[in-house]
Amino acid sequence: VSDTLKDPVSAVRALPLVQFDARPDVIDLGWGHPDPGLLPLEELRSAADEAARRWGPDLYAYGFAQGPAPLISWLSERLGEVDGRAPDPACIVVTAGASGALDMLVTLSTRPGDVALIESPTYHIAVKLLRDHGLEVVPIARDASGPDLDALTRTLDRLEHEGRRPNLFYTIPTFHNPTGTVTPLDRRAELVRLAASRGLLLVEDDAYRELFYGEPPPPSLWSLSEPGTVVRVGSFSKTLAPGLRLGYLTGEPGLTARLAQSGLLDSGGGIGHIPGLVVAVMAESGFYTRHVERLRSAYRERRDALVGGLTEALPETIGLNRPQGGFFVWVRLPQGYAAARLLELSQANGVSFMPGNAFSLTDGLDTSLRLSFSRYGPDQLAEAARRIGDAFRRSGTES
Amino acid sequence: VSDTLKDPVSAVRALPLVQFDARPDVIDLGWGHPDPGLLPLEELRSAADEAARRWGPDLYAYGFAQGPAPLISWLSERLGEVDGRAPDPACIVVTAGASGALDMLVTLSTRPGDVALIESPTYHIAVKLLRDHGLEVVPIARDASGPDLDALTRTLDRLEHEGRRPNLFYTIPTFHNPTGTVTPLDRRAELVRLAASRGLLLVEDDAYRELFYGEPPPPSLWSLSEPGTVVRVGSFSKTLAPGLRLGYLTGEPGLTARLAQSGLLDSGGGIGHIPGLVVAVMAESGFYTRHVERLRSAYRERRDALVGGLTEALPETIGLNRPQGGFFVWVRLPQGYAAARLLELSQANGVSFMPGNAFSLTDGLDTSLRLSFSRYGPDQLAEAARRIGDAFRRSGTES
Repeated sequence: VSDTLKDPVSAVRALPLVQFDARPDVIDLGWGHPDPGLLPLEELRSAADEAARRWGPDLYAYGFAQGPAPLISWLSERLGEVDGRAPDPACIVVTAGASGALDMLVTLSTRPGDVALIESPTYHIAVKLLRDHGLEVVPIARDASGPDLDALTRTLDRLEHEGRRPNLFYTIPTFHNPTGTVTPLDRRAELVRLAASRGLLLVEDDAYRELFYGEPPPPSLWSLSEPGTVVRVGSFSKTLAPGLRLGYLTGEPGLTARLAQSGLLDSGGGIGHIPGLVVAVMAESGFYTRHVERLRSAYRERRDALVGGLTEALPETIGLNRPQGGFFVWVRLPQGYAAARLLELSQANGVSFMPGNAFSLTDGLDTSLRLSFSRYGPDQLAEAARRIGDAFRRSGTES
Repeated sequence: VSDTLKDPVSAVRALPLVQFDARPDVIDLGWGHPDPGLLPLEELRSAADEAARRWGPDLYAYGFAQGPAPLISWLSERLGEVDGRAPDPACIVVTAGASGALDMLVTLSTRPGDVALIESPTYHIAVKLLRDHGLEVVPIARDASGPDLDALTRTLDRLEHEGRRPNLFYTIPTFHNPTGTVTPLDRRAELVRLAASRGLLLVEDDAYRELFYGEPPPPSLWSLSEPGTVVRVGSFSKTLAPGLRLGYLTGEPGLTARLAQSGLLDSGGGIGHIPGLVVAVMAESGFYTRHVERLRSAYRERRDALVGGLTEALPETIGLNRPQGGFFVWVRLPQGYAAARLLELSQANGVSFMPGNAFSLTDGLDTSLRLSFSRYGPDQLAEAARRIGDAFRRSGTES
């Protein structure tokens, strides 16, 4: 045992507590984390107290494998309100966040060597998770409205010709990470039809559905499909708190039963039992609904601060979206500029972000970058935009 | 949306909350669950409050992937006290219970078609988990001291001869589930030597280490081995509360780094962040240590009630261990009796248990049964023993 371990206080300081890696004087737009200032600390704490009072020993017991009943019942209602269709409670499994949902699904429905299709660009850590399971990851090109369905058809044909099995297609139709775009209803319907006709499982990442800043997004792929074509994964990480590690999936009852009867859930019981009951308390009181409304205002203001700041600080030749929801602004630099170089100059200037290639399998996005407006307040976001503008001007002088 | 969903109270009642399936008038010794009356409800609740006060937004943020620093530091010290050797903090990963540890390990270190060795009998749901990952499960015979090392060697030879890869050996040396036995130090040392010489990864389920009712158990396989031979998984489900879904593993730093950098933990952050900090509070105050001491007394009394009751109620021809720790009594019926028939008569008589074949791949344990003394108080356990005795006498008359 080392010396630091004998002093609990210094040991606590020696190892980090949270995932976010704070760098002094850097406004870091690289992380899709909620603003710590928007976490409902007092309500989380009092809901935990209420759950302990209400359920006593049942709160701390092995939970029901599918998830705690009060959360599942409410989720079914809530999705009926914010999505196209309410799932039957039998179609829901509570999970350890959206990542835990994806992990469990991949364990039980794929075998190494299977092919997982992804959009390009896409959420980079989902790709890592798919590869952890030994899947071969094949990219499908995207346009501003979502996956290119001709490209998808060609890839399915090619794989079929090679005798390989495209097991699933991981897609983010709503407030896409990293580009912030929304797949419109007609493309959704076409995608679902194509998947059904080819026996392809769509895995829909729906983590940002509740966080819209204008019109609500179109219904999920899940709600548009016949049972068995889509599994949708959702999360409370963005709407309540990431530390809860709470999410869910909706799928056909045969699949959800298989997940609930898996070794992982059979052995340990429900994986989101305590946080699930805490969230059920916050849902029942109406707090969840009010809180999500507040988040929409707060993140809308943050989006406007960053997009407004960037519009002022950067020339018109720069491509810039104004996302209608989610956490991300996607910037496309003019030809001849490199995101990697801009990142270097930006970091020297006290601001950071994710270069586009992080979200690509083929490094073809070296003029794009992702800026997250979720973690900082409007003033810091405006300052970040100024700093990026400065860095851009210097990178232009050099090139 | 069905009618029940419009009434939150009836919806809550329609779906279960916990995993335990209570049957009226049945004392069910089939479940290895802690007694709800021994869960430290008030301390769990006040530790959650204290964690919220102390860490504020950091409690609810994406946690450090490896696990929260205060828990890891303390775990390192604690294992130095209750095991043969303190792991360096870099050798620990916090997990979603022991099951989550096993699941994560298997995802990252095996491929379908790989062979997982298990002891027979063993914890049946671990077998299910291994099979969920597409592993072929091959049993190794056990004697009263643990896995038969000659049988293990022969199986390794045979697999090698067939060109197959025995990827890991899942074993429970300490208060074995289902038999309650402890593998003595010399067998542990031999097993570790054999595994090292054959390049076999031992996965040691150490969930019951803290719950001993006489002498402390021998050091873990992990503490006896060179880095890389053993991964030990541990849990707070038995010592604090299963609903926390909190466990850990110890392994060599290359492996723990690979786990911490996995897609699952990189995407979602530490999977036991909030419960880990709650437990850190309970550890720091000294409550954990005192509570485990109280549990040892309480479960010792329960073991004595069940073993004493069975000794009175059953003839001497019945084999019966008096476990020195853990949750399970393993009963061997005389030749000509069947556990399945005894179970049927016992259930009619208001008591239940797990038949031995549940823990076997080959159904060769039809005269054995597992009785868990963890979930009920001494009086109910004594009553359960009487009911089993009655049922046994009737099953004897019939055969």
